[in-house]
Parts: sequence; C-alpha cells; structure tokens
Amino acid sequence: MVFYYLCDDLNKVINNLKFTISHTDKNSKARAGEIVTDHGTIQTPIFMPVGTAGTVKTVHQRELKDDIKAQIILGNTYHLYLRPGLDVLEKVGGLHQFNGWNFPLLTDSGGYQVYSLSGQRKLTEEGAKFTSHIDGSKHFFSPENVMDIQRTIGADIIMAFDECTPYPCEFNYAKKSMEMTHRWLKRCCTRFDETEAKYGYSQTLFPIVQGSVYPDLRAKSAEFIAAQNREGNAIGGLSVGEPAEDMYAMTEVVCNILPADKPRYLMGVGTPINILESIDLGIDMFDCVLPTRNARHGLLYTQHGVINIKNEKWKDDFSPLDENGTSYVDKEYSKAYLRHLVHSQEYLGAQIASIHNLAFYLWLVGEARKQIIAGTFREWKNKMVAQMNNRL
Amino acid sequence: MVFYYLCDDLNKVINNLKFTISHTDKNSKARAGEIVTDHGTIQTPIFMPVGTAGTVKTVHQRELKDDIKAQIILGNTYHLYLRPGLDVLEKVGGLHQFNGWNFPLLTDSGGYQVYSLSGQRKLTEEGAKFTSHIDGSKHFFSPENVMDIQRTIGADIIMAFDECTPYPCEFNYAKKSMEMTHRWLKRCCTRFDETEAKYGYSQTLFPIVQGSVYPDLRAKSAEFIAAQNREGNAIGGLSVGEPAEDMYAMTEVVCNILPADKPRYLMGVGTPINILESIDLGIDMFDCVLPTRNARHGLLYTQHGVINIKNEKWKDDFSPLDENGTSYVDKEYSKAYLRHLVHSQEYLGAQIASIHNLAFYLWLVGEARKQIIAGTFREWKNKMVAQMNNRL
Repeated sequence: MVFYYLCDDLNKVINNLKFTISHTDKNSKARAGEIVTDHGTIQTPIFMPVGTAGTVKTVHQRELKDDIKAQIILGNTYHLYLRPGLDVLEKVGGLHQFNGWNFPLLTDSGGYQVYSLSGQRKLTEEGAKFTSHIDGSKHFFSPENVMDIQRTIGADIIMAFDECTPYPCEFNYAKKSMEMTHRWLKRCCTRFDETEAKYGYSQTLFPIVQGSVYPDLRAKSAEFIAAQNREGNAIGGLSVGEPAEDMYAMTEVVCNILPADKPRYLMGVGTPINILESIDLGIDMFDCVLPTRNARHGLLYTQHGVINIKNEKWKDDFSPLDENGTSYVDKEYSKAYLRHLVHSQEYLGAQIASIHNLAFYLWLVGEARKQIIAGTFREWKNKMVAQMNNRL
Repeated sequence: MVFYYLCDDLNKVINNLKFTISHTDKNSKARAGEIVTDHGTIQTPIFMPVGTAGTVKTVHQRELKDDIKAQIILGNTYHLYLRPGLDVLEKVGGLHQFNGWNFPLLTDSGGYQVYSLSGQRKLTEEGAKFTSHIDGSKHFFSPENVMDIQRTIGADIIMAFDECTPYPCEFNYAKKSMEMTHRWLKRCCTRFDETEAKYGYSQTLFPIVQGSVYPDLRAKSAEFIAAQNREGNAIGGLSVGEPAEDMYAMTEVVCNILPADKPRYLMGVGTPINILESIDLGIDMFDCVLPTRNARHGLLYTQHGVINIKNEKWKDDFSPLDENGTSYVDKEYSKAYLRHLVHSQEYLGAQIASIHNLAFYLWLVGEARKQIIAGTFREWKNKMVAQMNNRL
C-alpha cells in the first residue's frame, strides 16, 4: 500500500507543469522560457489563440498546428459548459478528445463571460447566478463547481473563478471585488487540491490578480496571489477599456511582485504592441480575440502596420497578402482577392484573414523570444512598436 | 502571311478543348472520358464545385485540390461581373489569376441569376435589363456582352446566354422562350467566333438545350443545339422543381440527340442519386450548390445515406464523421464534434461539412468512372441508389 501511494505521489510531481527560464533580457524584464505540460512543451513568451466553443473560429485544427504554429489554445468554460455540455465532454474524455487538439489547452473560469454575455446575473459571496445567452436557462457558477467543470473539460491549465471588474470602476467596488476574488481563490484552491484530474494527465490551477487600475490594490492582490504558491499566475481585469498606459503600469506593479520563476499570464491582451510592451515587463503568456475578431472585419496585422483590407486602395493590388508573412495564405492569396472576399462576406475571407493574423501573432511572440535569447529584445521591440502603429 | 495564318489556325485547333471517350458502358449510356483544356485535363464523368463569387464557399483553394480532388470549378458571371467587376478581373488577367485556381474553370452565362437573384428585371429580344441584388444599380445583359464578359473573366469553358424557364412553365411560354434562347445562341456564337481569348489560352463555348419538361421541345432544342457543332453541349432548365422522373426523361430525350462524341453537361444537377442516374443516361459533367449549401445546414451525403448532423442521436457519437470518407476531415473530426459546431453556428462546422460533401461528390463521380471502365457501372449504380436514399 505504501508503495502505491509513493508511486502516485511521484507521478503527480513528475506530471505537473514545469517552467524553466533559459534567458532573461539585460535591458528589460523580458524572459524566454519553456512550460512543459503533459500535452507538450510551450515556448514562452507565447500567444494562445482563443477557441471559445472548442474551435478557433474559421480555423481547422491542422491549420492551427501547421500553418499558424499554435502551441496552446484556449477554451471558454462558460461556452463549453452550456454547449456541448459536461455530459458530452465527460463521455468523450475531455476537450482534447472532443476537438482533436492533442496539444496544450487552457480554459478560463467563465467569470468574464458570466458578466459580459449572459442575460440576467446576480453575484453573491456564494457565486454567480446567470441565465444562458443561448436559451435563457438558469445556471449557477461557484468557485467549487467551476473547478469541477474545468476538471471535466480537462484543460492542462485551468483558471480560478474571479470577478473581472469593468472599466471605469470605483475604488471601493474594486477593493471589495478583489477581496471577494481572493476569498473565491481560497475556495478554488481547496476544491482543486481535494479533487483529481479525470483523464490520466495532470492539470494545474492559475490564480488571477485583480484590483482594477489602482496600484495599491494591484500590489495587494499580487502579494496575496503570490502567497498561494501555485505553478503559474495570471493578471485579469486589464484590456477592458482602460488607457494602455494604465494597463502597462498595473502590469509592471504586478510583475514586480509575482514570483519570477513562475509563468505570468496577462489575460485578454491584446494588440501586437500591447503584447510586446508586456513581454518587456515580464509577461510570458497572452490570449486575445483581436486577431480572429478583427480578421472577420478585414483588419490585418503586419510588421509594418495595420491593413484595412476593405479600403478602395487594395481593389487592384494583386501583390501577396503579406510579403513578410510566414503563413501559406500570405503568398497564396492577393490583397485584392481578400478585399473582394471580405466585401462579398464570403467565409473564405474570414478564414484567410484569421490564419494570417494568428500566424502573425505567433510569429511575433516567436521573434520576441529569439530577440530575448539574442540579447536584442529592447531595440527590436522599440523598432517594431514604432512601425506597427502605422495604418497601411 | 499564309504561313502565319496557318500557324494561327493550327494553334487554335491544338489548343481547343479535346474530348476523348475511353470506355462506354454495355448496359447503359454511361461513358468514361477525358476533357483536355489549356489548364489541365478533366476525367469524366465529373462534378464541378460551384465557386459563385470566385470562391467555393468555406473552402481554401489548396483544399479543393488536395482534399476534395476537384478538377474543375465554376464561377458565376452575374456575381463576378457585379463584384469584383470586370476592371479588376481584366487587370489581373482573369479569374484564374485572381483567385489562384490554376486549373480548369467554367463560367455560367448569368442568365439564371438574372432571373433568380436580381431585383427588377425585364426581358426583351435584345437581352435582359436587371438591377443588382447588391446595390440596386441597373445593368443589361445581352448575348453579345455576356460573351465579352466571359472573355474577360477568362474561364476555359463558357456558357451561352439563355433563359432558364421556371417550373411549372406553360407550353407556349416554354416554346417561345426556347426559340428566343436559340436566336440568342446564334448571336452568342457570332460574337464568340469574332472575338479572341484575352489571356493566352483558349476558351470554348457550350450552347444550352432548353424546352422545360416538354419532350418535343427538348428534342427540337437538342437538334438545334447539336447543329451548331460546338465543342460541348449543355442541358439547362432542369432541377428547377420538376419531379426527378421528368428530369431523367428530358435528359434521356436530349442525350439521344446530342452528339455522342462531345461532352454533355447537365446544369445545376443535383443530388448524388440524380448524378448517378444521369451518368447512366450519358451525362459527363455536373455542377450543383447542394453539397455546399446543405453542408452549411448540417446535411452530409454518404454512401449509405444522408446524415442530418443536427439530430440528437449524434450528440455523443464520437465515431469518425464518415468511416468510408476519402477526405481528411472524415477521420479527423467526429460526428458529435461536427454536431456541436453546426448547433453553435461555428464557421468550422460549415467548413468541415463542405469539404466532406464535396469530397464525397468527387469520390462518387470518380467511382462511377472506375465502374464504367470495369464494365460494372449499372449494377453498382443500382446498389448505390438504393442505399443513398437512406436517412441516417
């Protein structure tokens, strides 16, 4: 019996998330590292495409892997819980099995969607009552059942249940909300630690720093989160409408407190410039709907600025979509053809632009990593930030 | 000078469409052949995916070639004329250059869309006045300018401008319409023959048999069309709501008259069963929006019948989309996952189902070809027709 217990413990330790930093930048807080999960290794800094309902919109799984070079993608707990539902996900053996993405996965906690998407909602100390945006049915999320739900979805990295405060947000509301998020975190940790992964590979829980745009709240929250000593930490409640300067200021305050030897995930951020500036401050992980959502509206991110492909000027520009692009769509399709597709509201327009934008985001974080390793990150970042601001 | 003229003529003959029949079935009128165009060879019988606005909806060009095994695709003259417009298409050097599909292309004449899509329309001996469904602007199609437009779009095979009569259709209307279509055809041939291809490869013009569901009109029209002695012939005005028996009866009447040594194209047909029955009657080419349109509604065609993937029964069926499917999506994705995507109105659902359905259609005509060559077409067709009727 003792032998079996030892083996179990040993396996647990071996399987848990490992983070190693191979290079730190001399001139900034940027670092290059690797996160090892049971579904593979992630090279940081990394951008994680958002696959809300178990699909990154318009993109096949093989395109994610081969053309976009995604290493980890997101799923949204709120959406997956409502549809296809936990019965389906449990029966198939989790989201990896369901959608065929056999690489690292992260799920958010559903907190953000409860506030942004559901119809009616009521927040109490116990949790959040909400109605489904699909059929109006009533549901309840608590720190405990959100851990159980994410155990069933089965992502490699799961997130604590928190309240994401809006912007602007009164100091007193932000403080009370942060304190409740902290109490919820304790409940999340307790539930997570007394339950086990369901599908033969390990999961890890990241807590989330809140505190709106108030430095003292952010510092307090970062200290509380750091003290939980989990395997990675996240920063929430930014990129919700505040000025970029506030986002960077809060990120800096928090990065100075969160342990340096654990991955830092800045949730929901952002533009290519936001990402480079935040890497500079010590962030390792990002997710954002911008590259896919803006793709569907014809906005393309490039090294040299943002293209609005709907503009008249691209009507007869038959040059490749992006001469510097790394994905096959950049060479295979022209600007004029994509403009035509987007104007005609053809699916293929959204498909091409989504692959382009996501491949660009993955190129950007991969290049940032190379520059960190080469010791040239800050100069490169400054050049890129200057040129990516252009409207082409 | 004489030398040059001879060379021109010689090139014209060499470059024009070539059709050779390698096998004819003993027990039916089915035949297996090859159509050679300047953009490649098409093995018949063939199904041509519809790429209305220069894109087969939801499908990348490389997927068309590699996963679906398409050999020729369609473009719609009405749509392409309105958007991106002839200025763009002429500047880039035609549709092949515009969308990057460097294989055979066919364009319809726009006649069908003028009647089915545009707002107001007025038909006279001269042609058709119509308003754009996009912006209400006014336009005019005549046999002459539709030839010019298709010269500019630059498809390998272009279609005569005709009136596609609706179903049901009074005999007298059908007769008068057919006679006008015949007069329009003469004008199309004259204009086509006095103009040249614009982009260094040859084009050919197919005339269209009309006559609604009236055998004597169909026979008369087929005789008229046959007498024009073009390089291929088409049958229009079917699959517009008439019973399948009428479609087959009209196809049989016409196939008995159209020359056997030229390709026969049955326009807008149809279901997998329609296609097999029409191959049996001597048809070589098909196009239809069903596989892509129905894909977007969650209907999947398979060897063993039609699947409505939205049905509850597929909710937790994690088996591959189609065990017998030839495309990678059939193995990569499960029925339950596709059901979830279609229910969630996710783009990827339409993308997966479209690739599946088109790959199935291309498999079907390819298998028909093999069976014709093996001399087993009729028995195989009867078996397939019986089993494809199932609702799974």
